Amino acid sequence: MNYPYKIKKNSSNQINYSNRGMVLEADLNETNNYYLINNIAIIHKKPTPITIKKVDYLSPKKIKIKEATFQKPSTTDYNGIYQGKYIDFEAKETKNKSCFPLKNIHSHQIEHLKKIIEHGGIGFLIIRFTSYNETFYLDGKDFINFINTKTRKSIPYSYFKDKGFVLKIKYNPRLDYLKIIDKIYFNGGKENEEKKKNK
Amino acid sequence: MNYPYKIKKNSSNQINYSNRGMVLEADLNETNNYYLINNIAIIHKKPTPITIKKVDYLSPKKIKIKEATFQKPSTTDYNGIYQGKYIDFEAKETKNKSCFPLKNIHSHQIEHLKKIIEHGGIGFLIIRFTSYNETFYLDGKDFINFINTKTRKSIPYSYFKDKGFVLKIKYNPRLDYLKIIDKIYFNGGKENEEKKKNK
Repeated sequence: MNYPYKIKKNSSNQINYSNRGMVLEADLNETNNYYLINNIAIIHKKPTPITIKKVDYLSPKKIKIKEATFQKPSTTDYNGIYQGKYIDFEAKETKNKSCFPLKNIHSHQIEHLKKIIEHGGIGFLIIRFTSYNETFYLDGKDFINFINTKTRKSIPYSYFKDKGFVLKIKYNPRLDYLKIIDKIYFNGGKENEEKKKNK
Repeated sequence: MNYPYKIKKNSSNQINYSNRGMVLEADLNETNNYYLINNIAIIHKKPTPITIKKVDYLSPKKIKIKEATFQKPSTTDYNGIYQGKYIDFEAKETKNKSCFPLKNIHSHQIEHLKKIIEHGGIGFLIIRFTSYNETFYLDGKDFINFINTKTRKSIPYSYFKDKGFVLKIKYNPRLDYLKIIDKIYFNGGKENEEKKKNK
């Protein structure tokens, strides 16, 4: 029912992204905007990479793209700086109830996260299980550890319950993922406060 | 003669970017690729942000963009991680012989660089004067200092000669800007070796 080709356009020719995991994206954009305005962190979503095939030169300053296709991303979607540290993450929604299928994350993106951690950056995933309306922070080290030790093609929901941190939706900031980073990276190790709330 | 609307397309419908400052971009992409392959740093160019107006859904996995326009970027084009530090820069070519006109860098991008430095990141510009085929690294602190103290709408070439570092084109890596960062940020202050070579 919800395949991308069924996305409807509204009358003003704008694209309706509501079925394509754009709700989580909107929540994160709002969160990052809150961090930016309040000078807490500078974290942006990268534009989606495209290959331009045809253009129209309307004027020296106005170029219209007439044909283009989406590229596979070679990095994660979000990066920036917090407390002097390099921040890098990927965010995905899944309708699956029992697991997060790894096909949702390209192998380039996994390699990228591995390298970021190796070079001293903070890498992680933000995964939303839409069936439960539950959003998890999964630290990059736990993610890479899963990839390296398991042969499964999906991460079980239980792994997120066990290793991840629940991100509750709040008014402002919507998804305060930096609070988790504070716990893991700036206050000496993972605490269980966030998890207890959830159990 | 070289305005963007005169850019010619070749027979295979590929766009010829040679007049649009894409030579410096190609040099930097090659340099960043060298850093990546040799596990020195992870620095990528961000995709150009676009606003999608119309799409065709060819299949669930294949979406073709039928109409789109370029957006003004809100951040710089390049960022990543080196030696655990957040790296952020903008790269531009100019045909001007006496100065680099500041209209080439959007006010959002200047604000972005200011914030990056304030948050402990390494921010800078890479500017190529195509008339001299000379490429400079200008540290973000010197750039922001110029913006804050001068009312001019351009940075004189002499300022680059004075405060900047020449990046000579080499075989591999093409533009070794991390060597300059090593000098400024990792070996305790700016040295003059690079400048002497140029005088």
